[in-house]
Formats: sequence, C-alpha cells, structure tokens
Amino acid sequence: MCRWMAYAGEKIYLENLLFLQKNSLISQSLKAIKSSFTTNGDGFGVAWYGGKKTPGLFKDVLPAWNDENLRQLSQHVKSGLFLAHVRATTGTSISRANCHPYTYGKWSFMHNGQIGHWQLLRRDIESMISKDYYHHRLGTTDSEALFLLALSYGLEKDPIGGIKKALEKVIALLEANGATEPLRLSAALSDGKSIWAFRYSSDRQSPSLFYGTPDLHKKQAQSKIINTIASEPFDDDSDHWTSVGESKVVLWKNKAVSISPLF
Amino acid sequence: MCRWMAYAGEKIYLENLLFLQKNSLISQSLKAIKSSFTTNGDGFGVAWYGGKKTPGLFKDVLPAWNDENLRQLSQHVKSGLFLAHVRATTGTSISRANCHPYTYGKWSFMHNGQIGHWQLLRRDIESMISKDYYHHRLGTTDSEALFLLALSYGLEKDPIGGIKKALEKVIALLEANGATEPLRLSAALSDGKSIWAFRYSSDRQSPSLFYGTPDLHKKQAQSKIINTIASEPFDDDSDHWTSVGESKVVLWKNKAVSISPLF
Amino acid sequence: MCRWMAYAGEKIYLENLLFLQKNSLISQSLKAIKSSFTTNGDGFGVAWYGGKKTPGLFKDVLPAWNDENLRQLSQHVKSGLFLAHVRATTGTSISRANCHPYTYGKWSFMHNGQIGHWQLLRRDIESMISKDYYHHRLGTTDSEALFLLALSYGLEKDPIGGIKKALEKVIALLEANGATEPLRLSAALSDGKSIWAFRYSSDRQSPSLFYGTPDLHKKQAQSKIINTIASEPFDDDSDHWTSVGESKVVLWKNKAVSISPLF
Amino acid sequence: MCRWMAYAGEKIYLENLLFLQKNSLISQSLKAIKSSFTTNGDGFGVAWYGGKKTPGLFKDVLPAWNDENLRQLSQHVKSGLFLAHVRATTGTSISRANCHPYTYGKWSFMHNGQIGHWQLLRRDIESMISKDYYHHRLGTTDSEALFLLALSYGLEKDPIGGIKKALEKVIALLEANGATEPLRLSAALSDGKSIWAFRYSSDRQSPSLFYGTPDLHKKQAQSKIINTIASEPFDDDSDHWTSVGESKVVLWKNKAVSISPLF
Repeated sequence: MCRWMAYAGEKIYLENLLFLQKNSLISQSLKAIKSSFTTNGDGFGVAWYGGKKTPGLFKDVLPAWNDENLRQLSQHVKSGLFLAHVRATTGTSISRANCHPYTYGKWSFMHNGQIGHWQLLRRDIESMISKDYYHHRLGTTDSEALFLLALSYGLEKDPIGGIKKALEKVIALLEANGATEPLRLSAALSDGKSIWAFRYSSDRQSPSLFYGTPDLHKKQAQSKIINTIASEPFDDDSDHWTSVGESKVVLWKNKAVSISPLF
Repeated sequence: MCRWMAYAGEKIYLENLLFLQKNSLISQSLKAIKSSFTTNGDGFGVAWYGGKKTPGLFKDVLPAWNDENLRQLSQHVKSGLFLAHVRATTGTSISRANCHPYTYGKWSFMHNGQIGHWQLLRRDIESMISKDYYHHRLGTTDSEALFLLALSYGLEKDPIGGIKKALEKVIALLEANGATEPLRLSAALSDGKSIWAFRYSSDRQSPSLFYGTPDLHKKQAQSKIINTIASEPFDDDSDHWTSVGESKVVLWKNKAVSISPLF
Repeated sequence: MCRWMAYAGEKIYLENLLFLQKNSLISQSLKAIKSSFTTNGDGFGVAWYGGKKTPGLFKDVLPAWNDENLRQLSQHVKSGLFLAHVRATTGTSISRANCHPYTYGKWSFMHNGQIGHWQLLRRDIESMISKDYYHHRLGTTDSEALFLLALSYGLEKDPIGGIKKALEKVIALLEANGATEPLRLSAALSDGKSIWAFRYSSDRQSPSLFYGTPDLHKKQAQSKIINTIASEPFDDDSDHWTSVGESKVVLWKNKAVSISPLF
Repeated sequence: MCRWMAYAGEKIYLENLLFLQKNSLISQSLKAIKSSFTTNGDGFGVAWYGGKKTPGLFKDVLPAWNDENLRQLSQHVKSGLFLAHVRATTGTSISRANCHPYTYGKWSFMHNGQIGHWQLLRRDIESMISKDYYHHRLGTTDSEALFLLALSYGLEKDPIGGIKKALEKVIALLEANGATEPLRLSAALSDGKSIWAFRYSSDRQSPSLFYGTPDLHKKQAQSKIINTIASEPFDDDSDHWTSVGESKVVLWKNKAVSISPLF
C-alpha cells in the first residue's frame, strides 16, 4: 500500500527526515506502523527541488532500508522541498518506472492507495489520458495513470480541480462497472513551491495521513512551523502531528498549512 | 536494435547456442556484427519450453555478457525449443517488463526493429489492443504492443494472419500520420511446437535474418537438419546459414523449415 | 538472520516447496515466524542439482517475494535435490555474490546465523583460508568465509569434520579476542547426493531448525518419507515436522534422515 | 579496462562533463576510443565533494549510458570536485561494491588497469592490508585492494608515497612469482581539495591519461585553466588536452596542474 512523506521548509539534508527519525520513512519501508502492509520493500523514490524548476528524481527497485545509494544521496543532497515514497505493490510489476514519485515538468506526484479492479478498468482509464500527456506514460501503475489523468483534466492550471475531476471520472467508471473494490487515495502533489496532499476514498477508509513538525535535529527557535506531511508520524510526540480527516486537501503554501474539504 | 535467436530440435543445454558459438547471441550482446547497434546491453531474455505448455521466462536488465544467472541457467537448463533476445533500446525504458520475449499463455514473441514515431502513435496503437489482451500489457515497448495487437487480431487461431493484420494496421496509421520513420521488423513467434519468423519493413530495409544449422558440439549424424533462426550467423561457415529475404515468413514445423511470402 | 530450506527426494518443481506451502520459504522472506528478523528481503538464492555434477545457481538481490524470475524458474525447473535461501543481512553489503547458497564444484552451502565481531575478526579468519580455496572467495560475508574455511580443513573428504574444525577455529578466535558476540549457525551442505544440516551456537541459542515431510501436493503413498530440512515448518501440522536440538547434525542420505551430536 | 575522469574547479552540474561532451565519459561507456575495451558497461560510479568533508557516492551495476538515475543526479547535483568511473571488469564480479570510486573517510580512489595474476596473488596482497583498513574491504577487486594497501602504507599522510609503496610491493610480488602478466595503472586519488593522478605500468604500456580544459558550456574568460584529468579527451580540439607520459604523477592543487615523475 506504500508510505510517503513530503517536506517544505529550510534547506536540509534529506537524511534528516528519511533516516534520522524514530519512525522515519526508511524505517517504515521495513516496518510500517499504521498500514496493513507492514513491509514496503518493492522499491522507492525521491523527488527533490533544488536549483532548477524541475525536480531531481532518484528511484530504484531495491528495498529502501538497505540501499546504499539512497543513504549516500540523503547524506549529501540538501533541499527545501522534497517528496519521498516507499512502495508495496498492489499487483503491478517491480520496475523503476513504476516507483513513485512521478514527474511531469516541474510537477511531482506520489500516491498511497489503489484504483479498485485496476486490470479490468485500465484500458478505459488510460484511454481518457489526453494525447498531450499519453506519451509521458513510463510505467503501468494505476497511480501514474491517475496523475496523467489529472494532468489531462487541467492539473497544471488548477491542481485541486484536476485531481478532483480525475477522481470523479474514475469513481464513475467504478460505479458503471459495479465495482466491489474501492478507490483509495492518500497522495501528494508539488510544483516545487507548494505541496497539495489529498486524502480520499470511495469507501471512506482512506490510508492514514498526517501533517506536523518533526524534530529536524537543529536548534529551532521557530520549530513550531509545520513542514511535513506524511503517511504516518515520525515520532511518538503527540504535539508534533495532526491527523487529516477523510476527503480533505492539505495545502502547504507560503510556509503555512491550510485544510479544506476535497469534495 | 536488438539481436535474437530461436531454436527447435533435440533437447540441448541453452549454453550450446547462447554461449558456445563463435558469434553467439551473448557475443552479439557485446559486439554484434550485422547491426548498426554494435552493443545490445540493455537487458536480455530467454523463453524456454520444457515439461509444461507455457514457457519458462527469464529476463533481466543487466547486459547479457556478464550476467552470472544467465550463464548458470544456460548451463543447467535443457530445452527442445527456446527463444532468446538481447536488447538495445530504441527509447523506451530499461526494465524487465520491457525485455523480450513477451509471453501470453503458450505463446512467446520477440522483435528486432521498431515502430516509427512510437511516442506519437502509441496512444492510437494501444487503443487498438482489445480488452481481452489489454490487461496483459506489462511494459511500454512498441514490440509488446505489436504482439498484443496481433493477439487482438486473431494470432492464436491464425499466427501469420494475426501478425499481418497488426502490421497492416500500424502501417496504415504511419501513413495516415505522414510518418517519416519506418516500421521495421525481424521477429519470432512460437507456440512451443512451431516457430514463425517474420522479416518485413515499410522501407524494405529490414533487420538481418538467417536460418541454419550451427555446430551443436555433438556427434551429429543428422547435423544438416536446420534448427536455428537468428538475427545473424553464429559462425563463418557459409554452409551453415541462409539469409532470409524481405517480406518473408520462415516456418519451422515438424523438423523442417519452409519459406513463404509475408505479403 | 536469514531462512533456508533443503530438499531431497523425487524430482519436483521447485515451486512446490518455494511457493506452494502455507509458510513457504518465499512467505518467510516477507514474514518469517520463528526468527527475530521478520523480513528476509536482502536477496535470495537457489542451488539445484540436475543432470550435471555441479548445481545450477540462481541468486539475486531483490526480495524473493516479488521476483518474477524466481517464480518462473520455480515453475519450470524440476530437481531431486535443491537448497534455497532468503537473506537478511547482518551487516555485509547487498550483492549477488553475498547471497547464499555458495558453491564449490559439486558442493553447495548456506547459512543462517553469524560470526560475532565479524568486521573485527575478518582478517584473521580469511587468512586461515588456504591458498587452494582463497581465490574462490566471491563476496565478503562471514558465511562464505566459513564455507571456505571448512573446505580448507578438509570438507571435501570429511564434511562433518571440515565444518567442525572450521567452527572450532572460529570459536577459539572469538575466545582469544574476548568476544561478547556469539557464533551462531544453522547451516546446510550438500554434494548433490546427501544433505548435511548443522545446528550449533557458542551461546546455545542457535537459530531454529526442523526436518519433516511437507505436503508435496501429490498423491503420495509413501508420503511419510522425510524429505525436507528447513529453518521453520512450512505448515501447522505437527505430524509433519520435528525440531532439531542444539549441537546436532542432521544427515539426509539414501532417502533416510539420521541425527547425531555435532560436538 | 575502464575509463574515468576527475574534475576540480568552479561548481558545475556533473552533467556538463559526464554527458554534455562530444566524447563524454558516458559516451565512453558505450564506445571508448582510446581503449582496447570498447564497451565499459559493467557498472559505474561517481564520488562528488560538496558541503561535507566526505564525498557523496553513487554506484550502480547497470551500464552508465542508459541509467536514468545517473542522468538525473548529473542534472541536479553541482560540485567543485568530483570523480567518475565506468567499468569493464577484468574478471571480478559485477556488484556495486566492486564499482569505482572507492572511498575511505575524505579520500576517494579509482583505477583503470589491473594487477596481473590477480586470482593467484590475491591472498598475498590482501594479507598485506593492515588491520586498520582491512575491515573496510567492501568488494573483491584488485583496484580496491590496491587502495587499501596504499592506505596501509601511509597514503593519508603521504599520498604519493603510499601509492608508490603499494605499487612496489605488488611489483615485488609479481616478480617473486615469475609473473607473465603486468601491473598496469591509470588512477586518480582525491581528498576533496587536491587530485593526484598516476600513470604507471610494469611493462610500460600504461592505459592512456590526459589532462586539459574541456568546454564547460559557459562564458569562460578564464577558460584556459586546466580543470580535468581523464582517460581520454572529451573532444577533438588538440588545444584542450595534453597526454601524460609513462610513470608520471599529475597533481591538481590550488587551481594549477603540475607533473612530476612517479619513480
């Protein structure tokens, strides 16, 4: 089912959040706490924003917990906005292209959840991806298809609108096919300046989602500024983390977080 | 552009043809002779038929020339009909799913060549794959799409007819889009009993294709029985190999080879 | 800490034991029951004996649970004697060479456990490997060193004697260095005809070891013949499995199992 | 036989030298010009110095020419001193640990060439590595052994002296064993501030080595400052590159290059 985290704030080495937390994302790859999939060992990915408009992207098919390249990158690359993901496949194959985050120009996207009956509905969903974005399909996951669908429905001009329309289309398709499996989504989107996080599912059993302020291991006068959105808390300090409700959008923008209804 | 070979005959260890030839397929992965792509190091695959109707399939993204698993498998697995392929990508990503051969039930398929303007035409071509086979799309290559298209057009009942119809559809699409890049094909198909090999291109510059009788390193009274179809000869003995002309089908069936026009 | 299994009996497809069991070795890669290391996702390996004296060897660094090549190999390769291993590293790096089983000629060896203070003692232990076997060191694990040490001490002529002498040497070294970490071992050795399994540790807390008769999904008149030795039972049927005590050798030979003291 | 490059100068994106040159290192991975090994596809590595004393390290076993992670890293990471290497194995296995550069603390090292009769002499050479550095042996190559040997002989205090002593010891061993295979070396070493490059071989047939000033694709008033040492020139401009003679040390320090005899 996957686990992910997104960070925006002062520039920090990626390792501060990916490794140096009690329940860091890399810990979650081996042993997630708030997921039915304990092990998220089917690959990983990081998209980090630096000196360019487009993010750097590093993905691999090995488990994150013992990948020396990921450890090195995290120790030596700093970023003020990055997304990271550890994967537990819901059926599609293990390949770098199938690892999250997915990117398109300045945009990056990652997803925890699934589109029910994916193999059955895949052809219909892929055919809704517009010609402008179709050639950018690099893998075969439901998550990447959802991202390209949202792009097809105007994500670049209206991020929330694009995601909503994509979800509506998929839900309509699930209903038209009498689906017994739900659409479930805990996802993050960024353009390098803001982060949008979405929590939604057709059966109101969305994957967990939190935002908060983990300890960045620095002297932080302003340590109460929320800087992280994640599948699950990185520590046990209940002051640090707030749970996001069903059908909500979390928007990190101009150093502040706001919550609004998705539908 | 890739190189491949297909064998049918007495049961032999795969290594006899994959490794123990002067210009074996594995040699061709490092240094092909009759291809503009000297290096075919973007992964490899083997489909071998044994005790079951469906073939065993082994693929990896590493170069074939130094893959110890491929060497071991070739030394320890025997087969009376197998297909093997070394890849030089024409643009799609390096993943196991994108390596040839592709399989569907008892069928296996591999391809050397390309569909011109693939990224442009991909959406139209994929949308022609029928619902029955669409969910079996595991990668993103033009070659796998062509196989699924041929399946959609009846390959299982009429192998040559299915391939021909798929080619006709793709060529029509290329023409309708004023394509300047050709369709080129040197491909092999098997159901575990027969092998069909196809040589065709829209600009009559098809990749090389040969059939013949390489030395199997055994005392062979009947060594003149043709048992191999391949992108290029495995040795310099001109008695061993015959070149296949443009727009031909090679059929290996009941221990004999026959050639017929494709179109 | 790793999990492993060894089988000898009628020729079966590897999948019967690797996949088609309630608590198969592949299940144990994701969720071992009787180990402190729940996840054994740091690579895997299989050594199978067939038509040659030397075993075939297939290893990879990906988790076993979603490796399509392992699944295919297991479905299409039959063997009457094979060893398989899933790895949880105790510190040495993730590489194919570091995956078990290790082979030398007709011999194969795999290990669950560790040599305490490995990085500290490594130089001394490796220097005890004789020149005849030293060049065969392909990786950097304590387990492979132990195998080469046993070979150096005569394993090829006296398998139990070679292992015993290697263990004695390592224990002496641990004691000489005032070690606080133990030597622990649950290991299997084969020459393609017999299987020797060893359970031993310097602190009498050896990894679990069982032998028994899992359901091979066949009509088995003689189904009570013990054919499997494994880190943990494949099912909950207490008739199927017997636990091996501390400091014991299990010998499978001529279709029968015998137990004897190791020291 | 491998190809490599080392750069020191203003901070640039790695891609400027790894990709955006006519005969870039990545081009050399597919088609080296001045090497008997045309293809250097057995893995690659980059060590880059940034905000920390120790370098970041990124290695993988795939060919460099189509590795999307390497492309991304090169496009998004800037450095003022970095080393990069593409590998053609001379016999040791394909693993990340066997890829160059090797690092120890702030030190990084990479090598093109080989120690003759490696499998024969390996035990003797490894036994000369001191206990202080032995536990840092991560792979099995002759190159890494040479680096650890030089460290054992004082490289950290006297870089040239350490390398010289290591070479002398190996040559003495080759002579003592009546070796018919040479020691050959074109190697680079860095502490993050200076770069030392060595060209030497026991049969005076050292791998090629150059230093020079490739076009960094910037408006460069001071473009004549030598900033690159490499196995072969990146372009055809003979003003850009100078060949290094046999048995020489190239030292890049304080923005200037000096050449001195090695022995």
